[in-house]
Amino acid sequence: MSVKIAQIAELAGVSVPTVSRVLNGRPGVSDATRARVQGLINEYGYRKSSDGKQKFIELIFRELESMWVGEIIRGVEEVARSNRAGVVVSKFGLHDTDASVDDTVGRRPLCVLSVFQLPEAERERLKEKGIPYVVFDPVDDVPDGVPYVGATNFKGGQSATRHVISLGHRRIAMIGGPDHAFCLARAAGYRSALEAAGLPVDPDLTVRAQLTREEGWGAARTLLGRTDRPTAIVTANDMQALGVYLAAREAGLRVPHDLSVVGFDDMPVAVWADPPLTTVHQPLSEMAAAATELALALGRRERVPQLGLEIATELVVRQSTAPPAP
Amino acid sequence: MSVKIAQIAELAGVSVPTVSRVLNGRPGVSDATRARVQGLINEYGYRKSSDGKQKFIELIFRELESMWVGEIIRGVEEVARSNRAGVVVSKFGLHDTDASVDDTVGRRPLCVLSVFQLPEAERERLKEKGIPYVVFDPVDDVPDGVPYVGATNFKGGQSATRHVISLGHRRIAMIGGPDHAFCLARAAGYRSALEAAGLPVDPDLTVRAQLTREEGWGAARTLLGRTDRPTAIVTANDMQALGVYLAAREAGLRVPHDLSVVGFDDMPVAVWADPPLTTVHQPLSEMAAAATELALALGRRERVPQLGLEIATELVVRQSTAPPAP
Repeated sequence: MSVKIAQIAELAGVSVPTVSRVLNGRPGVSDATRARVQGLINEYGYRKSSDGKQKFIELIFRELESMWVGEIIRGVEEVARSNRAGVVVSKFGLHDTDASVDDTVGRRPLCVLSVFQLPEAERERLKEKGIPYVVFDPVDDVPDGVPYVGATNFKGGQSATRHVISLGHRRIAMIGGPDHAFCLARAAGYRSALEAAGLPVDPDLTVRAQLTREEGWGAARTLLGRTDRPTAIVTANDMQALGVYLAAREAGLRVPHDLSVVGFDDMPVAVWADPPLTTVHQPLSEMAAAATELALALGRRERVPQLGLEIATELVVRQSTAPPAP
Repeated sequence: MSVKIAQIAELAGVSVPTVSRVLNGRPGVSDATRARVQGLINEYGYRKSSDGKQKFIELIFRELESMWVGEIIRGVEEVARSNRAGVVVSKFGLHDTDASVDDTVGRRPLCVLSVFQLPEAERERLKEKGIPYVVFDPVDDVPDGVPYVGATNFKGGQSATRHVISLGHRRIAMIGGPDHAFCLARAAGYRSALEAAGLPVDPDLTVRAQLTREEGWGAARTLLGRTDRPTAIVTANDMQALGVYLAAREAGLRVPHDLSVVGFDDMPVAVWADPPLTTVHQPLSEMAAAATELALALGRRERVPQLGLEIATELVVRQSTAPPAP
């Protein structure tokens, strides 16, 4: 059984601050006292914060199916560990939040990170309890004053498009995603890059689809069926890009020789795709670490320079893009 | 600010058990008292277990790179939630365990689940502190008496091999994995199925490789370069199988027309592979739920029927297997 600091102090016949000095290796304690206290600590064990003062960071997912889970936890866990805090991972959706939010609040975490969304009712609960929170990579724009950390989706869309422009492509299509803020930003980056290069934005070359391989396949079939088909397709995510691969193969087109394809996200599968996929990397574990640091700073009531942060995406050129066939 | 049960009792001028009855909706309290107590609870808030009695389950990963993380957490989280316990996820390797183990022990969790391994020194620490633990899907055999939950790797290897035998294949190769118990079991399942069908185990048709796409590719090149090449390849995991796809394409062989391929694990990528991969499904979230239930039962000092459990794998037939070309 380990004991509390006060018990160690009593056993050693010294004050609590003295024990604390020994525990933390600070000066101001005679060698004899230090040896006696350390001996008792070694003998009885010492359980830090045995009165429920364990420190936690709550990480809330809305779904745990995602392939992102590991990378996000990795970033949070590193920051938490350097703060000697545990990471409590929970999952709650929109229908079973009440008991779960009670549990979260009851644990009095240092802060809460919510992956993708944090509904208003939950934000209010946390605010009421003085628990700081940050929304991680919000799917939609969050109201002003709600702290968040996301990725530079607009710039990512731009750099994907600029890359194929720089390879010489002129007929560049975009498969956009659904009506979420991050998809709209990616598509806006595409348009912006075309306009900056003086290329027309052809409505025939922009289609929208859900973020799945099947929908990417369907959208690509439409695009590749046009008489003046695109020579490059920029997509809203890697799953759509895998669907484009499939449609290209069915149409007898080789990637990248006949068709360049750019994804978005840089999921693990991007490396294994055949050919390996050129895509826009989202630095998820860095984003998660930054979100955790921000939330902890808010908890310490530090003045933070910005409540919202976008962490830079980065184009990763692999083998799915090449100059257009002559 | 929320308060403790004793403070509610003091404010209401009643005993602690009376407040407890109101909190838990039990009888034995007059309507007037119940109303007064409930009013105070509503006014001040009530923080359950504010003295460190929050319940936790510790889930320890050795690495968080794995695509499995999300699925494993999902299984643990469901069981934890139904027990009103939080899931604390941490990662520690073999070099930085001491402080992390201290933190884990200091949280006094209901139980510990360790993914893939739990070194002996850590097992001893937990045993000493009376914290029950279960090893999740051990990479190598655990000593007798160490509780674990794994998958039926031997049967999985058997069913993968039986499947291609039943399609009519006779030249069936196996790419085995490294020297870990789960890989050896998968390879033993392959041999067992061949022997049961009266087929020879040809040493030319068994090679070993690391569990990566690159190594799977290299192993498949060796196998497909043989004069009497196999018509089906059973692999130790899905990544190897993706490498086999690549080697087949390079050799001008079509999957499954010229070569059948079976994976193991059923990673998300198995569905997106082209063609979708026939593979052995590991029910990770069910395994994780079972491991959590086992650990909780050990914590309640219940008599459990078995300290070790293997949860059944299941062959998932997709489009990478077909009868051999005539």
